Amino acid sequence: MSIKNCKLGRNVKIPHPDLVNLYGCEIGSGSFIGPFVEITRGVIIGKNCRIQSHSFICGGVIIGNDVFIGHGVMFTNDKHPKANNKNWIMEKTIIGNDSSIGSNSTILPVRIGKNVLIGAGTVVTKDIPDNTIIYNNLEKREKPHG
Amino acid sequence: MSIKNCKLGRNVKIPHPDLVNLYGCEIGSGSFIGPFVEITRGVIIGKNCRIQSHSFICGGVIIGNDVFIGHGVMFTNDKHPKANNKNWIMEKTIIGNDSSIGSNSTILPVRIGKNVLIGAGTVVTKDIPDNTIIYNNLEKREKPHG
Amino acid sequence: MSIKNCKLGRNVKIPHPDLVNLYGCEIGSGSFIGPFVEITRGVIIGKNCRIQSHSFICGGVIIGNDVFIGHGVMFTNDKHPKANNKNWIMEKTIIGNDSSIGSNSTILPVRIGKNVLIGAGTVVTKDIPDNTIIYNNLEKREKPHG
Repeated sequence: MSIKNCKLGRNVKIPHPDLVNLYGCEIGSGSFIGPFVEITRGVIIGKNCRIQSHSFICGGVIIGNDVFIGHGVMFTNDKHPKANNKNWIMEKTIIGNDSSIGSNSTILPVRIGKNVLIGAGTVVTKDIPDNTIIYNNLEKREKPHG
Repeated sequence: MSIKNCKLGRNVKIPHPDLVNLYGCEIGSGSFIGPFVEITRGVIIGKNCRIQSHSFICGGVIIGNDVFIGHGVMFTNDKHPKANNKNWIMEKTIIGNDSSIGSNSTILPVRIGKNVLIGAGTVVTKDIPDNTIIYNNLEKREKPHG
Repeated sequence: MSIKNCKLGRNVKIPHPDLVNLYGCEIGSGSFIGPFVEITRGVIIGKNCRIQSHSFICGGVIIGNDVFIGHGVMFTNDKHPKANNKNWIMEKTIIGNDSSIGSNSTILPVRIGKNVLIGAGTVVTKDIPDNTIIYNNLEKREKPHG
């Protein structure tokens, strides 16, 4: 089991603690963490979120409440990664309440608003305003509340 | 080991049973399941398939015989995922015999025909007819049989 | 633990040996291998590289020194994969020194030069010359050395 130095709220569900790597993060009550997930130091995840299998959430990411992170979603915090960079500065990503990130999406350091739906397989390179749907970077339209 | 309530055919090969999460699914004889794979309740996989590492196959997916699922392929069964949705209806995906899905592809709920080749990194959002090659959503041409 | 028949240099760091699948590969001194990584027979990785979580590196891939492989990067060695192909010929990928491959990228069999930066979420289908930046396949410009 590799869950180290994490602050877990009440009723956080991690069905396969032997198949995750979580350290130094904070996960709100009622949230779910699937297998093959890595969440690293400094991440804050709100209440009642679902973090699906195969996702990676890095330091600098703050996730609100009731957020869905699909399978195989990769977050980033460095637009110019190098194998050996001593002067690296961590960039931030914020996701608002009630948003959903589709599976296999890639999230560059951006701000994603509330009640946003990112379609599966999207590469998100820009900030996304509240109440927006993005499907495959092709369509973008108003999303109804709720 | 996390293989629960699965119906496995003869000679199903799972070289790393401690590194998979399989439950409630059916896998045909002679098929191969790589490490870091999750396959969930209700999935049916045919005979002599290869499910490569890091792939996720969700309920609602039915896969024929002799199908290749590359590494890091993510299936989906919900076009409007939410962290907490009590009225969710599962959408289906069907893949015909002899088809291949390239690595890191994302499969929305669609019907993929027989003898189809989906190039690596493709986001599949529409049904794909038999005997079709799709490369990076850019090219689409007839594929010879066999 | 699943690290078999590998040639590991001095000070190779594998913090979660129980969460990787490495076999028949060669990893240079000072390199780092994250969790949920699979590296297969014949892969050669140079010195002081970082191979981040959830990545898959297949036979036929040769990686230089000081290379960054992001999270969820999938390499390939067969442009026409089949579940059961007895006449399969492995294609090669070479990555030069000091290059970085962004997270969730998909690498078809190509030659990637030295000091290249591939943006996160890119599908790389063609050779990439030295000192190049590619972001989402949209922008391509000269990258300064170092």
